[in-house]
Amino acid sequence: MKEMPTEGRRVEAVKTTEGWCSLNIFYHMDWPAWRQVDQALQTEYINQLIAVLNQWTEVEAAEKGSHAFYSVLGQKADLHFWILRPTMAEIHDAQHQLEKLPIADFFIPAYSFVSILEASNYLPVEFTDDHPMVRAKLYPTIPKLMYSCFYPMNKKRDLDDNWYMLSLEQRRPLMASHGETGRKYKDTLKQYTAGSIGLDDWEWGITLIGDDPVEFKKIVTEMRFDEVSARYGEFGPFYISKLLPMDHIQNHFKL
Amino acid sequence: MKEMPTEGRRVEAVKTTEGWCSLNIFYHMDWPAWRQVDQALQTEYINQLIAVLNQWTEVEAAEKGSHAFYSVLGQKADLHFWILRPTMAEIHDAQHQLEKLPIADFFIPAYSFVSILEASNYLPVEFTDDHPMVRAKLYPTIPKLMYSCFYPMNKKRDLDDNWYMLSLEQRRPLMASHGETGRKYKDTLKQYTAGSIGLDDWEWGITLIGDDPVEFKKIVTEMRFDEVSARYGEFGPFYISKLLPMDHIQNHFKL
Amino acid sequence: MKEMPTEGRRVEAVKTTEGWCSLNIFYHMDWPAWRQVDQALQTEYINQLIAVLNQWTEVEAAEKGSHAFYSVLGQKADLHFWILRPTMAEIHDAQHQLEKLPIADFFIPAYSFVSILEASNYLPVEFTDDHPMVRAKLYPTIPKLMYSCFYPMNKKRDLDDNWYMLSLEQRRPLMASHGETGRKYKDTLKQYTAGSIGLDDWEWGITLIGDDPVEFKKIVTEMRFDEVSARYGEFGPFYISKLLPMDHIQNHFKL
Amino acid sequence: MKEMPTEGRRVEAVKTTEGWCSLNIFYHMDWPAWRQVDQALQTEYINQLIAVLNQWTEVEAAEKGSHAFYSVLGQKADLHFWILRPTMAEIHDAQHQLEKLPIADFFIPAYSFVSILEASNYLPVEFTDDHPMVRAKLYPTIPKLMYSCFYPMNKKRDLDDNWYMLSLEQRRPLMASHGETGRKYKDTLKQYTAGSIGLDDWEWGITLIGDDPVEFKKIVTEMRFDEVSARYGEFGPFYISKLLPMDHIQNHFKL
Amino acid sequence: MKEMPTEGRRVEAVKTTEGWCSLNIFYHMDWPAWRQVDQALQTEYINQLIAVLNQWTEVEAAEKGSHAFYSVLGQKADLHFWILRPTMAEIHDAQHQLEKLPIADFFIPAYSFVSILEASNYLPVEFTDDHPMVRAKLYPTIPKLMYSCFYPMNKKRDLDDNWYMLSLEQRRPLMASHGETGRKYKDTLKQYTAGSIGLDDWEWGITLIGDDPVEFKKIVTEMRFDEVSARYGEFGPFYISKLLPMDHIQNHFKL
Repeated sequence: MKEMPTEGRRVEAVKTTEGWCSLNIFYHMDWPAWRQVDQALQTEYINQLIAVLNQWTEVEAAEKGSHAFYSVLGQKADLHFWILRPTMAEIHDAQHQLEKLPIADFFIPAYSFVSILEASNYLPVEFTDDHPMVRAKLYPTIPKLMYSCFYPMNKKRDLDDNWYMLSLEQRRPLMASHGETGRKYKDTLKQYTAGSIGLDDWEWGITLIGDDPVEFKKIVTEMRFDEVSARYGEFGPFYISKLLPMDHIQNHFKL
Repeated sequence: MKEMPTEGRRVEAVKTTEGWCSLNIFYHMDWPAWRQVDQALQTEYINQLIAVLNQWTEVEAAEKGSHAFYSVLGQKADLHFWILRPTMAEIHDAQHQLEKLPIADFFIPAYSFVSILEASNYLPVEFTDDHPMVRAKLYPTIPKLMYSCFYPMNKKRDLDDNWYMLSLEQRRPLMASHGETGRKYKDTLKQYTAGSIGLDDWEWGITLIGDDPVEFKKIVTEMRFDEVSARYGEFGPFYISKLLPMDHIQNHFKL
Repeated sequence: MKEMPTEGRRVEAVKTTEGWCSLNIFYHMDWPAWRQVDQALQTEYINQLIAVLNQWTEVEAAEKGSHAFYSVLGQKADLHFWILRPTMAEIHDAQHQLEKLPIADFFIPAYSFVSILEASNYLPVEFTDDHPMVRAKLYPTIPKLMYSCFYPMNKKRDLDDNWYMLSLEQRRPLMASHGETGRKYKDTLKQYTAGSIGLDDWEWGITLIGDDPVEFKKIVTEMRFDEVSARYGEFGPFYISKLLPMDHIQNHFKL
Repeated sequence: MKEMPTEGRRVEAVKTTEGWCSLNIFYHMDWPAWRQVDQALQTEYINQLIAVLNQWTEVEAAEKGSHAFYSVLGQKADLHFWILRPTMAEIHDAQHQLEKLPIADFFIPAYSFVSILEASNYLPVEFTDDHPMVRAKLYPTIPKLMYSCFYPMNKKRDLDDNWYMLSLEQRRPLMASHGETGRKYKDTLKQYTAGSIGLDDWEWGITLIGDDPVEFKKIVTEMRFDEVSARYGEFGPFYISKLLPMDHIQNHFKL
Repeated sequence: MKEMPTEGRRVEAVKTTEGWCSLNIFYHMDWPAWRQVDQALQTEYINQLIAVLNQWTEVEAAEKGSHAFYSVLGQKADLHFWILRPTMAEIHDAQHQLEKLPIADFFIPAYSFVSILEASNYLPVEFTDDHPMVRAKLYPTIPKLMYSCFYPMNKKRDLDDNWYMLSLEQRRPLMASHGETGRKYKDTLKQYTAGSIGLDDWEWGITLIGDDPVEFKKIVTEMRFDEVSARYGEFGPFYISKLLPMDHIQNHFKL
């Protein structure tokens, strides 16, 4: 019998600063049912969706949130909305605004992820909430680049590979080294981290945005060889999506 | 070949005191079918649901149970009812009262959790069932704060990380240290523990209730670095919900 | 490289005596479709189900089998039938008798478990098939107490925690100690063990029957601290059900 | 850091001889939809299925394949077809012949398993493809005994318990000892092994056929204590079925 | 407590060269709904699908991509399209061209896999993107042989068996030895590797194409005994399909 600790060991937890609340929401499109809808009605329903997105664009212009709308590659989903708002109440209302649209009768739930944008004290320097770099991470206007990659992840707690049993001093250089890898891609990819411990089934949701999807493959591959990923990273499903610009939406839904 | 024990080792089990029986029950709303219902009939159906909730409010006023009704964030479910009653028979009847309502034809089962509120002898002091602090844990009136976070969890039994092979003396300080972390949040969060060993697929169901969902993220993150969670905690799905006050219900279901 | 065995090590297998074949079968009720059925027809369909149960009660009276019918708590299922018969052919026929009823058009399959009641040579004394205690385990008339708890389970085979690599001499005291825990609950709970190795996806199906569901929580919690469970037990889903007495059936299905 | 190998270690792979291609295919029966079909049409549809089975019986008589048709116990499926043919193209065509029948509109896919009957060089003696014992394993006429038990399985690759890191010399006695256990049941059970590495999600599909299902429980239990199963076996779902003789088929589908 | 590293260890990542983007997309066929379609309309819908495939054949002739269309064995899916294109935007458009066809109303999503064909610096020699062997791996015209085998896979990160903690010097001989096994099958099988780290839920998608499906079983079995697979390989679902030549398509869909 291995010797057991007689006192609860408690390591210093990470300190985080929270930004906007985040909802990634994915739907399958029920194309067979949608095809039954008469074309004029289809146009009307699509216009109602566009009206909501226009309203959200005003929110974005007022820096009271941001959003992006994507078409998903493969069969995990057809549509991906990423919505950022100052409060969970506004996230809740935005989701309901979407789901009460008549076109939402043809949206079949596929996946969702609730989280909050965060910055952490693994960063090499002290930061405050009003530092521009921090603000860009916590209160971003989502750049309208051509592709997005979203995936949730955990840090492992598996016998000897247990992230949460490492001290802050042990975790910090692992994160720093990881951050260095990330910064190599700063010209081609925007990277966002949202914390979801206590909010959803994985601990973080990561979003990469860029014009070349090969970069998603390059950065995640290179990072996987960093000890922090190799030994402690657990990855959920990856969703790769292509931006749906406002002027493509009518066409996207037309059969 | 590792040397094997020749006698069954039996450590002292936790002692628990049981309070009210608990049912967390989650439904998707079948919005497309609901939209087909004529508006006057929708109003009638919603009023029947409100009538049941009013009846349950009388039960609550009589301190014969409690309940809360929430709208879920994201796609895991749309509706979340938390129901507390003195017996499983009353829990059973409350569930059937709900599910036999005409509006329940539009409720698609999403998840449920059967458990019993409990206090355990990990508490630092002796307690009796009629201690006010214990009564508040076992027979609570659910506070009608703005958000709830529900998640089931286990204690691990994985090779060297096996909670149930630790003695009571080893487990107690681990739980005590965990309790300390919990108490830091006592001003912003109400915390409830329901035991479900022998009743449902996870060993406990935890409920956090508060006005600021960032606190859910903070407390669960901080606790994850306590050894008892870091090494022995296994977590199920997290359900984050927003309170549906009585006077919002009609509007919530209107398209 | 760890030294590998050059001969197949074979430990003495458990010896079991088999009793009646067992089917636990769970259904969701399709309430929305059922509500469309006219009330007189509902009554007729329910009466056909009652007629089958009455026929099964005659089988039970003749000691040619037994059965019980339950309403499940939570959303894992609505209905739970437990059926015992001397042969799998009779189990097969009973299942088909049920599933060919018109009311079964409203039963949506939820879960099932095929097994055979068993006694094993872990028992402290020699026993024969006609010992009354053994007969009560192998050919029981299911007691019509108010609640049942059904769960499937395995013994682990995970690296150093491998039940099937222990010798009979090592396994026997572990099982004996476990049996002692079980016997503490003999006044409040009936306990049945059905073996399902080679028959279904878990190795055993356990049924507890009693009038107080708190006892399910107490016994399974206490047992979890026995080494045989703590270290070697793997547990499947738990189904908690409330007895549906014959004179409650009409009412149970009425909306 | 554990010392890592600097060269790829490659152990001698098992050598196998392949026989007929195999498809196990399971369907749920959509009883509610089937009940809507007028009885004369039901009879016609069933007769079309019987005609296909009769055609397959001619294939079997010509020793160009074999098949069996079963009714499944429990809810994993209702119907189980096991089809053997010399080529995957014929397997493909047989599946399509079945699935294009009108009655197949009421067959809901439940599970399938694609494999090839095999003999391996773990056998104690040299064998050739035309040895009668080998032919009976590779090109069998499926015996029409009353019950079948089908399950897929793997050999583990889990840290120190890694079958594929053992040498042929280490694996052979483990398999030999396992074979001995199997031979104890040769009078009551027919045993078939089909390899599915590179063809389906498990490495093998095992079929046991016999008149007494208790024997399925006995053999799989006894084998589980052989080191090769105890330490290296991983088991998938078990499907237990009862033979559907040709003259029971009409009745089986009648409501 | 095991000694923990104080600096992030970072091993040299694999270097890859990317070729065409790849989509494997699988559908169930909704035969019952399809049977309701009048035969002339069926023919028209099938011809529209054939027209798209003809258009894709022109893309292939122009060396701007490639594709293949298969009928799947067993129940995992009915139809399998493999589509290669220079960009993800073209992959996206090809998927939508397919899914907007009227016949796609009868295609039920079953599985999909998004990846990019790749060559890696595990190859024994330096290579450039315009080497003919490399071009055949990165920009292939898919050979129209009779069967395909597709499966996704990972390299393990499990305690001591962690591929991503091995140095490039340690990984290279393991991959080389694996490559040798692969080359034994070069006359009977075409082998393609597509990387999906950062794009889909597994790290690679492997495709084997050949005229004899026994070869799929032989190569994957032999490779499983290579240390790189035995110790580090994790395998997803295997999809075995039979080529659907253009002149079989009408017949394939006819009932």
